[in-house]
Amino acid sequence: MTGTRRGRRPGGSDTREVIAAAARRQFAAQGYPHTSIRGVAAEAGVDPKLVQHFFGSKQELFVAVVDLPFDPAEVFPRLLGQDVEGVGRRLAEFVTSTLSGPGMTVLTGIVRAAASEEQAATMVRELVSTRLLGPLAAGVGADRPRLRASLLAAQVVGLHMARNVVGLPALVQAEQDELVAALGPLFQHLLTGELGPSSASPS
Amino acid sequence: MTGTRRGRRPGGSDTREVIAAAARRQFAAQGYPHTSIRGVAAEAGVDPKLVQHFFGSKQELFVAVVDLPFDPAEVFPRLLGQDVEGVGRRLAEFVTSTLSGPGMTVLTGIVRAAASEEQAATMVRELVSTRLLGPLAAGVGADRPRLRASLLAAQVVGLHMARNVVGLPALVQAEQDELVAALGPLFQHLLTGELGPSSASPS
Repeated sequence: MTGTRRGRRPGGSDTREVIAAAARRQFAAQGYPHTSIRGVAAEAGVDPKLVQHFFGSKQELFVAVVDLPFDPAEVFPRLLGQDVEGVGRRLAEFVTSTLSGPGMTVLTGIVRAAASEEQAATMVRELVSTRLLGPLAAGVGADRPRLRASLLAAQVVGLHMARNVVGLPALVQAEQDELVAALGPLFQHLLTGELGPSSASPS
Repeated sequence: MTGTRRGRRPGGSDTREVIAAAARRQFAAQGYPHTSIRGVAAEAGVDPKLVQHFFGSKQELFVAVVDLPFDPAEVFPRLLGQDVEGVGRRLAEFVTSTLSGPGMTVLTGIVRAAASEEQAATMVRELVSTRLLGPLAAGVGADRPRLRASLLAAQVVGLHMARNVVGLPALVQAEQDELVAALGPLFQHLLTGELGPSSASPS
């Protein structure tokens, strides 16, 4: 909508995008351990040195190209900003529908990377902390927003692992409505409920 | 307590146990993709053919040697069988303490295997379904026990991924008491609460 962008832009950004697209595809399809700078370069039709020039190490490439299936800065304020009673259910609807679409592939890539190597787990921690937990915690209107946001992230990862990666039958067979009904109250509790005593300030 | 078992037992069960111990160690330390029949055989000091003779494929080896840090058939009836009001908290205490001990390494091995390859995910599904979800669901005194047990398994996997594998700071810094207080009500809801409409029988 902002005009065609077919011309080569300065700074090699087309080449950069071709490399990023190849990397994104390979991380998702092959998983983190089996993806290499060399393989990405081959698919993009460039020299491996150029991949390193644009992105640095394989870990840095991963964090740079992971394309979240939504914009946290737009989505979280919208989901969390309306009536407080429905927030758990809205979040459950968003999570289950996102994990059924292209978001599933993205999260599988992230989970695979995190589970594969110590260094990759560090990258995933940075990715999640800055791009997801920050915007999510900012919308939580209760104590310990960072802990609540992190427990929510744990829920989403666990659901994804159990349902989409491992494929536990009861979760695969459950309709989205059933999952939303089951998870909504949990998300509601994590976002707005009483968390119990804090270890930072035992009062 | 059942007498010393130092003598070589019939059927090469000592050799089998040496191989199993080597496999267990390598799966935990290196993760599923980087563990090989050949590497396990080398550590055990046997021919790779002998590993295959005892265990079959790498996937079958994995499922055979995963040593759960507790006996589900003993633990779940004990946790779930007492007063209903405290069941969520007891389970949260059990989960958080198990995940802080040797259970952490075992679950990391399982998660890594599940995230690594399609075939391994199938093995993990069988392992979890038969050895964990069966005994857990049997102790759930509410509707849809299998769905409840699977949602609980998702919670535990998610907590482990976010806290121990990725290392989200808010979860790493939280004391066990704080996690138990936060998770107890979630587990309680999943075990005994109203799950909402079922997709199997929308009434």
